[in-house]
Amino acid sequence: MTFPVRSFATHAPTNKLGLFHFVRRTARANDVVIDILYCGVCHTDIHHSRNDWGRANYPMVPGHEIVGRVIEVGAEVTRFQAGELVGVGCMVDACQACANCRRGWEQYCDTGSTFTYNGVDRHDGTPTFGGYAEKIVVSQDFVLRIPDGLDPAAAAPLLCAGITSYSPLKRAQVGPGSRVAVVGLGGLGHMALKLAKAMGAEVTLFTRSPGKEADARRLGADHIVLSTDAEQMSGVASRFDLIVDTVPYVHDLNPYVPSLVTGGALVLVGYLGPLDEPALLTGPLVLKGKSVSGSLIGGIADTQEMLDFCGRHGITADIEIIPMQSINEAYERMLGSDVKYRFVIDMASLKTAA
Amino acid sequence: MTFPVRSFATHAPTNKLGLFHFVRRTARANDVVIDILYCGVCHTDIHHSRNDWGRANYPMVPGHEIVGRVIEVGAEVTRFQAGELVGVGCMVDACQACANCRRGWEQYCDTGSTFTYNGVDRHDGTPTFGGYAEKIVVSQDFVLRIPDGLDPAAAAPLLCAGITSYSPLKRAQVGPGSRVAVVGLGGLGHMALKLAKAMGAEVTLFTRSPGKEADARRLGADHIVLSTDAEQMSGVASRFDLIVDTVPYVHDLNPYVPSLVTGGALVLVGYLGPLDEPALLTGPLVLKGKSVSGSLIGGIADTQEMLDFCGRHGITADIEIIPMQSINEAYERMLGSDVKYRFVIDMASLKTAA
Repeated sequence: MTFPVRSFATHAPTNKLGLFHFVRRTARANDVVIDILYCGVCHTDIHHSRNDWGRANYPMVPGHEIVGRVIEVGAEVTRFQAGELVGVGCMVDACQACANCRRGWEQYCDTGSTFTYNGVDRHDGTPTFGGYAEKIVVSQDFVLRIPDGLDPAAAAPLLCAGITSYSPLKRAQVGPGSRVAVVGLGGLGHMALKLAKAMGAEVTLFTRSPGKEADARRLGADHIVLSTDAEQMSGVASRFDLIVDTVPYVHDLNPYVPSLVTGGALVLVGYLGPLDEPALLTGPLVLKGKSVSGSLIGGIADTQEMLDFCGRHGITADIEIIPMQSINEAYERMLGSDVKYRFVIDMASLKTAA
Repeated sequence: MTFPVRSFATHAPTNKLGLFHFVRRTARANDVVIDILYCGVCHTDIHHSRNDWGRANYPMVPGHEIVGRVIEVGAEVTRFQAGELVGVGCMVDACQACANCRRGWEQYCDTGSTFTYNGVDRHDGTPTFGGYAEKIVVSQDFVLRIPDGLDPAAAAPLLCAGITSYSPLKRAQVGPGSRVAVVGLGGLGHMALKLAKAMGAEVTLFTRSPGKEADARRLGADHIVLSTDAEQMSGVASRFDLIVDTVPYVHDLNPYVPSLVTGGALVLVGYLGPLDEPALLTGPLVLKGKSVSGSLIGGIADTQEMLDFCGRHGITADIEIIPMQSINEAYERMLGSDVKYRFVIDMASLKTAA
């Protein structure tokens, strides 16, 4: 059983996104049917739409920062009811049985978690379509509750940018007394500043752009360090317990390592390629017991914890709302870093899209 | 006040080591005077003797795997008395006041720990001379107790190779149920196998040499994986909580990363250069929350803990005893990996050296 859904999709790497009609399944016993109100626009959407990572399946309906309202629930759904404001992030399913799933790391599911779009439903083998759509149908185990008081549009980016930034902060047990640095001020970076600050940390932004200082301070940075200024860099030697590096392209990590305390960690959340420009030096890691690691979004329980934390602290993303019809222009602006700090699609616009 | 000491030293990067007479200070109030019985030969000794790292000061008396007997103590020494069997490792002093020292990480002292040789005494500015000598004078805070029942010669390498291997195992809380892999079977690697096995872990050796299997099993390896065999490598995917990488030259880490469990750590203890052949890939770190880090020897309390652990489990190094006069030949054999697994100098030989 299926029902028709309007969406925006792309059909090839070089195509623009446009109106696309498809069908979603009706609710299985464990499913929640969500009327999508808002969907954030993540860089991953561009990468997949254009097949930058060589894993694209078309037609593709991107979008994994979804906020909407429950309109129907399956017979066995106990955790949600119609009318509730909910969210869906990067995953809509996982095996829920492997060691990683059992410890709440569904994003690292041994069998591969089912991504919200460009994936394959593990029950019926159909492609998954994301949040640039009127509605979505998701197992209740992968639906998040949006806390009261958060603006639904500005909360949407929490479902990816928020949890991606939150995970390394949580794993490093950041709190009062912690010193955290964030590399890069974009969708991820601006969330990392807000979250680290709300956790009580002393927060520093590393940036190459002097013009970002006022914004960074408003977002939670106590200090701004120009990474192109050798004097400023040596001024923060051995300072940070944790560096969250949100830069999505190849960059030199070596200048940041000395700013970690002994035993400190630099965690990559934005870059997935080789560290070849230049190579990573191991001497500073060995001589001071430091680490370079990576982190991918976060598990479902952690995502709910992050949302609840944001609810208590009134944290959402800084957004620019766009209609669905402006998505192609938005992609171009994102590629030029011309967004502060996240586009969010008002899905009401889709009702009139032609 | 000083007293004369016979030793072996080198005076230039291309020189051989030979007999050298110098003076050591008499005991300060907090000092222990040690008659050296045995000194292990570490690769670092070769690197420093030949100025491979560009930090050599000559004349140089190498040696930082020292076991000897206390022959005299300063007026304020409370922890040792004449006749006791003791050890000295890579450090003879540190500030003991910085945050790292206070947490027992003297090897990461913010002011720089005072190394046993090729360093500078922090009280009188004299050069430090190491264990290729009759006697050494060391603050009691940097003297270790050698447990009863351990062979003094075979215990000497515990002071560097032992603690270097022990630190990452301890930090990762290795114990029963842990799966640990060791890369490389040399002085460090053979200690890592023994220690991880004694901690209760399931232990695997990664090696490029099929001929090492029997030795590896004898030393504690439950499994041997040929890192040149793609099938064997894929057979250990997602298996290890910790990989201790002891290889002292540049090598490709990327084939090992997939064998870590999600959230697992590869810890470098042997290599201090750039990861440029080829570059480290970050994708596998991000997509499974893994880390690459480094670790340097270990603090004094951890070193005593390691020695006591070795005492309880009867663990020492596999050694070949040499006279002081064979040190230059030993260096050449080490460079050809022709030692199983550590040379230890019998310092009695120095009495007759000419």
